[in-house]
Amino acid sequence: MKLAQPITAAALAAQLSAELIGDGSILITGINEIHHVETGDLSFVDHPKYYGPALASAASVLLIDQRMECPQGKALLVIDQPFAAYNGLVLSERPVRQWTHTIDPTARIGANTSIAPGAVVGAYAMIGRDCIIGPNAMIGDWVVLEDRVTVGSGAVIGSEAFYFKGGKDGLTPWRSGGSVLLEADVAIGPNCNIARGVSSTTTIGRGTKLDALVQIGHDCKIGRHCLMAAQVGVAGNTTVGDWCVFQGQAGIAQNIVLGDRTVILAQSGVGKDLEGGKSYFGSPVQEARKAFKDIAVLRKLGEK
Amino acid sequence: MKLAQPITAAALAAQLSAELIGDGSILITGINEIHHVETGDLSFVDHPKYYGPALASAASVLLIDQRMECPQGKALLVIDQPFAAYNGLVLSERPVRQWTHTIDPTARIGANTSIAPGAVVGAYAMIGRDCIIGPNAMIGDWVVLEDRVTVGSGAVIGSEAFYFKGGKDGLTPWRSGGSVLLEADVAIGPNCNIARGVSSTTTIGRGTKLDALVQIGHDCKIGRHCLMAAQVGVAGNTTVGDWCVFQGQAGIAQNIVLGDRTVILAQSGVGKDLEGGKSYFGSPVQEARKAFKDIAVLRKLGEK
Amino acid sequence: MKLAQPITAAALAAQLSAELIGDGSILITGINEIHHVETGDLSFVDHPKYYGPALASAASVLLIDQRMECPQGKALLVIDQPFAAYNGLVLSERPVRQWTHTIDPTARIGANTSIAPGAVVGAYAMIGRDCIIGPNAMIGDWVVLEDRVTVGSGAVIGSEAFYFKGGKDGLTPWRSGGSVLLEADVAIGPNCNIARGVSSTTTIGRGTKLDALVQIGHDCKIGRHCLMAAQVGVAGNTTVGDWCVFQGQAGIAQNIVLGDRTVILAQSGVGKDLEGGKSYFGSPVQEARKAFKDIAVLRKLGEK
Repeated sequence: MKLAQPITAAALAAQLSAELIGDGSILITGINEIHHVETGDLSFVDHPKYYGPALASAASVLLIDQRMECPQGKALLVIDQPFAAYNGLVLSERPVRQWTHTIDPTARIGANTSIAPGAVVGAYAMIGRDCIIGPNAMIGDWVVLEDRVTVGSGAVIGSEAFYFKGGKDGLTPWRSGGSVLLEADVAIGPNCNIARGVSSTTTIGRGTKLDALVQIGHDCKIGRHCLMAAQVGVAGNTTVGDWCVFQGQAGIAQNIVLGDRTVILAQSGVGKDLEGGKSYFGSPVQEARKAFKDIAVLRKLGEK
Repeated sequence: MKLAQPITAAALAAQLSAELIGDGSILITGINEIHHVETGDLSFVDHPKYYGPALASAASVLLIDQRMECPQGKALLVIDQPFAAYNGLVLSERPVRQWTHTIDPTARIGANTSIAPGAVVGAYAMIGRDCIIGPNAMIGDWVVLEDRVTVGSGAVIGSEAFYFKGGKDGLTPWRSGGSVLLEADVAIGPNCNIARGVSSTTTIGRGTKLDALVQIGHDCKIGRHCLMAAQVGVAGNTTVGDWCVFQGQAGIAQNIVLGDRTVILAQSGVGKDLEGGKSYFGSPVQEARKAFKDIAVLRKLGEK
Repeated sequence: MKLAQPITAAALAAQLSAELIGDGSILITGINEIHHVETGDLSFVDHPKYYGPALASAASVLLIDQRMECPQGKALLVIDQPFAAYNGLVLSERPVRQWTHTIDPTARIGANTSIAPGAVVGAYAMIGRDCIIGPNAMIGDWVVLEDRVTVGSGAVIGSEAFYFKGGKDGLTPWRSGGSVLLEADVAIGPNCNIARGVSSTTTIGRGTKLDALVQIGHDCKIGRHCLMAAQVGVAGNTTVGDWCVFQGQAGIAQNIVLGDRTVILAQSGVGKDLEGGKSYFGSPVQEARKAFKDIAVLRKLGEK
């Protein structure tokens, strides 16, 4: 997410009572979790295992819980609770908002778009032209729908990311700073859930169609012209190419990359990156031909 | 679907600027996709692979993209884009309607039926006596519920079919001309989705009970007194007998026929027709006894 | 469930025209199905297979369809249709209620709790402080939410139990006398369903977080600080320990007990009790290490 008002590292250090190491003049223009950082971004790190990758990442400024040598052209803000500080910054940019209107007056809705009874539209949402929003659907704050998007009855676009920081006392939710973009001609079926990004934008590419009860996790990037059958689930931060087909009840793990024209057969479970242009089956998946051969071998063994 | 106003093949040919081959006096009384055609129906065909079956089907009139010899007692309407013409005809019979009312004034609702806050009821829907429609449920246009039907909170009855025609530029949705019928004493759980038929009526038989989050695809015919546990999915155009039991998260592919008293164990995946009166397990399924034997064999092999 | 007005066995026998065997002075303080009975409870039994267990259970009073010798300190009410009598008693305590208000005037809602547009709250529901109830969510009659609970858009808390009594003529629903308790800091994702207990209270323990489209069956007892990913299903009457993690699309059968810190990997299916502190995979599950070994063995066999 981008900040409404960029701030220098030095100014933020003062605001948080953090110790500044490095270049205080760096302008912080965004906040991101570490997988999505770009130049200008602030992120955080609070575990020795991740100090190295965080320092080597594109992040310009890091909230960190220990003094470290600062790489050239970056800044470290040393603070006891980096995650709490990070979460607080996101929260100040994206405050938890009480729903006060069925259709928020700050939402922008294009010509010839119909919004059915019971559908709610959040603050700063932008809905294009010729869209159809079904009864009791939810379009969350900051969500963007391009033209000719259809959203089924009861579908939820832009729910909070399911993303927690574990600790001895329980699970603390990250405040979601990201959003959702549904490109032109996307169709979302009834009672689906599309989670907003933790800090980036969950994106469904142009012309992709989802059947009912599909789950798309936070920060996913789904390609164009894909078909996802009912009850498919894609976990957070996964990237799917164009023209992919996921049959019913298939599941895709988090942080996966699938190539263009990947076909996942029904009920299959994907736990690793897959080359496009092929069909896969099983849980965990193999190429479909091999998976069916294994099944035949086992069935023959079971006949004895 | 039946036409509100039957029309002769000759009159429709003139209307569409199509070339007529065969008997122009045939009265077109309905429109159906090719799997569900009856005498009097119009359908379309636009691929050489399907010319033969389409001509041999019960359809009385075909939109077709090439001149062919016309069988006796039928008519062909030759036109460049048969699918577009077909879809346009369905659309003219079932226009995309803006939801204007929470309960449409054309809907008919029986005595002693309760409709909870937030539930929406579409145009020409018919709901019987003693039904209970939960909060935020959706009963779509033309949907029929017989007596004593219960629909859980957030359930969607009569969503658009998930049915697209692929092409180089993307996926074009078929306009759904079909509907949904829930027979007497059916119970639909919370947040289920029952899709309307592409051209026929998705039907749930008398006394059948669905738990939450179940998906029933377009044009399915589900028997009487079946039990479907939570998160079961049945893909489009599948036929299920009476007294079947589907355990949780089971999935049934499209175009399948299951006999009476078929039991599908939890998480199983059905990809072919099954004889009734038996239990099945696995993905893909086998008879349960054999499936469990195979598992035992494999587990033993894995001990070495 | 506890009765609003306790009644003696003798008084109830008279009310139902049942024959009393045993101690008519016993005070009936609650109604429960046989798995959850406590001293003071009334239950029923109508099958010879269950006469023994029912008589040996903690139930103080039994509706029964045959004369039997009555154990000391109990009472039997002999009646032709024990189930119908049982169901009638539950129904008289928990009548089927028409939803008349979006937020029922008898519901109690704590300070600083926000209830979004379209959310409905039933009779006698109690919602704590600092809760967030999303758009179009449903909080059913008698449901209790402690402080800082969040409920996602379209989630259903306190739907009817999916629980039927089979017979030749079809399936008769039990009237649900139980409720739901969401302890403090619980988070329920969008479009989840949490069923109410048949007679006890479905409970989600403090700090547990559910992602979207999760199903929790009637009478489940879920521990504290658990994480359940999207599309997980837990069937009725199952007990889950603290700090468990269920990955996406995992399914847990009914009447199961899982120990603390059980990890169920994605798409796995659990059909029996499991020891905590371990990871499990497969459908049906084994310990993950063994399950992956079996898969490796089969894949090697399939290479020949």
